[in-house]
Amino acid sequence: MSISDKVQKSMAQGSWIRRMFEEGASLKRQYGEENVFDLSLGNPEMEPPAEFREELKRLVEKPLPGMHRYMANAGYPETRAAVAEQLSLETGIKFTMNDVVMTCGAAGAMNVVLKTVLNKGDEVIIFAPFFPEYINYVDNHGGVTRIMPTDEQFMPKLDILETNIGAKTRAVLINSPNNPTGVVYSEGLLRQLGQLLREKEVQYGTQLFLISDEPYRRIIYDGLKYPFPLLHHPQSIIATSHSKDLALPGERIGYIAVNPECSQREELVNGLIYCNRTLGYVNASALMQRIVSRLQAVTVSVAEYQRKRDFLYGHLSEMGYSMVKPQGAFYLFPKTPLEDDVAFVRELQQWQVLAVPGSGFGSPGHMRISYCVNDRTLGGSLEGFRKAAEKVKGG
Amino acid sequence: MSISDKVQKSMAQGSWIRRMFEEGASLKRQYGEENVFDLSLGNPEMEPPAEFREELKRLVEKPLPGMHRYMANAGYPETRAAVAEQLSLETGIKFTMNDVVMTCGAAGAMNVVLKTVLNKGDEVIIFAPFFPEYINYVDNHGGVTRIMPTDEQFMPKLDILETNIGAKTRAVLINSPNNPTGVVYSEGLLRQLGQLLREKEVQYGTQLFLISDEPYRRIIYDGLKYPFPLLHHPQSIIATSHSKDLALPGERIGYIAVNPECSQREELVNGLIYCNRTLGYVNASALMQRIVSRLQAVTVSVAEYQRKRDFLYGHLSEMGYSMVKPQGAFYLFPKTPLEDDVAFVRELQQWQVLAVPGSGFGSPGHMRISYCVNDRTLGGSLEGFRKAAEKVKGG
Repeated sequence: MSISDKVQKSMAQGSWIRRMFEEGASLKRQYGEENVFDLSLGNPEMEPPAEFREELKRLVEKPLPGMHRYMANAGYPETRAAVAEQLSLETGIKFTMNDVVMTCGAAGAMNVVLKTVLNKGDEVIIFAPFFPEYINYVDNHGGVTRIMPTDEQFMPKLDILETNIGAKTRAVLINSPNNPTGVVYSEGLLRQLGQLLREKEVQYGTQLFLISDEPYRRIIYDGLKYPFPLLHHPQSIIATSHSKDLALPGERIGYIAVNPECSQREELVNGLIYCNRTLGYVNASALMQRIVSRLQAVTVSVAEYQRKRDFLYGHLSEMGYSMVKPQGAFYLFPKTPLEDDVAFVRELQQWQVLAVPGSGFGSPGHMRISYCVNDRTLGGSLEGFRKAAEKVKGG
Repeated sequence: MSISDKVQKSMAQGSWIRRMFEEGASLKRQYGEENVFDLSLGNPEMEPPAEFREELKRLVEKPLPGMHRYMANAGYPETRAAVAEQLSLETGIKFTMNDVVMTCGAAGAMNVVLKTVLNKGDEVIIFAPFFPEYINYVDNHGGVTRIMPTDEQFMPKLDILETNIGAKTRAVLINSPNNPTGVVYSEGLLRQLGQLLREKEVQYGTQLFLISDEPYRRIIYDGLKYPFPLLHHPQSIIATSHSKDLALPGERIGYIAVNPECSQREELVNGLIYCNRTLGYVNASALMQRIVSRLQAVTVSVAEYQRKRDFLYGHLSEMGYSMVKPQGAFYLFPKTPLEDDVAFVRELQQWQVLAVPGSGFGSPGHMRISYCVNDRTLGGSLEGFRKAAEKVKGG
């Protein structure tokens, strides 16, 4: 065999999701790209903010000597300092550049964090529904994923969490605003979660990391102020990116920020820098580091995303879809009118509408709808959502 | 402890190299950056070719819609096709875009390849002296590194290799032109190596991959034509980058190319694309992919590097240093006049000259000198090399 047993097995497990993507691609070939309403991808159609283009232009017109060379594996001091300054402003915690490591997006950030902290067999807790790559990331570094349930509002059930944290638990990984549900964890919930983690640290004599994957942090609605998970547990780490807030997912630019109050912070940060190197990322893109260091206070139009959310949430509610109204990110996660979410998503395909079955996120009976698309696609999808719902209700 | 046992152990093992770097940094603080002759880093001071700046400018002035979005994990079809076309031209083998995966540099490429092909405990053979990160890369994915010797010309000893390939051997990883020695493997050697691998494949009923790490492929001297390892073994993979040939190490842009004659090629390429995603690289930088797709035939000034090689090789030879004259890359790897290479490198530091002990590459009694620096640094280092050699000979 040309590939490892493990990779083969995990590719085969993911293959029905791939099959659905292929079915979508085949629909596009059949009906033409513009006649298929693809709400299956978290790939924003919005362009980066004007400030991004200006910074890029400025650098291209007046290049700095050596600006494409290697730098320290942690990134440029000025970029790390800019991130630290903005985080200090937003959180009220005093970050310095020594708390920040620039990374190849949030995916790179998470792999670096997990590689750094996990011993073989250590458990990482995530909550369903979850971003399915988490399972791969944990497995890459010898860890074991444990999946915990959420309530009707997609909030972690802390009573169940409590009985499942044990001596092997190394980290709890959360994602607020959440992919795929769009919900934002409240300050109250985070406070209770932090308290629980510290109680368990005492009980087992362990360090329990709270890892916060927060690339949608800036994309929140209704005037909400982002409740930072880091405020509620000292042993905590942000793993995030500018893929969504600056609409740069293809450029792979993100960072890790360690809570300055974390115990053994220096050892931890040195470990992160070391693993950023040895996992083969080496450093985050030199050019992107220069640019984002000047764009820490800039975000794409959140009002635009809120408008899209309101549009789709309103229409789907009217059609009878049942869902939690999300306060962030750019996803809806309604219940599917059929219990079999894969069957319902196939039904939607009949109307040239593409969504992702909740089963792909560990929550069958739901589907993920991405609304980070243009208005024509959004509007065009409505008929399919209506027809598919009517048909399965009629049947 | 905040970091894993394994990361802590491997950081501690590498710590003497780090200590030497720190001693270098402290010298720079003490004497001023311009008075320290740092030949310790493979970080080219040359700027990218003019064509790079033009392409970047063109894209910035006329941005393509969606040019910073996610694309397929393998990269843009046009970029993969451009790489395939250039490789076909250079090798005479017919590559298509389906044989190419764009990656986060050669380090990303190698991690993706190793993750894809290694089962736990599989052995990967490398030759000393070697780029020390190889050991981390193999270990990241559950493999075991086996280190084989080279001869006086730094060519693999095939007779010893032959007796060491066993049923657990999965791959032989080579690097020509070589870091740290600068030597280029001859066609004759590669032919014998390929033959040996196929004999062993038959003997053990295994697939033996030849992985060729070749970022210095274009940086070769004396009118040499690059002997492509891929021509001599069908089960072979290139893992490379544009860090050196386009002087873009900080931008992390490289690729994997699979020999089209490789058995189970499609499964292998699908595995590579999958691992590029699940290891958290996701995709190579969108912007860099666009640019390098138009620069496949462009290279930095090789004449300039050859001039630097001739300068330093000539002077060091005259001073009595003994070394193989390298035909590629931008390193010299002389024997140290003291058997204790660490002691000799410390001696050089007394003269504000920085080099890396051969022990860091698995070959004590040598040192690596990088000449990818400006002429002032190169010229300024000569006195230190002379004085240090005289002193230890005198002593």
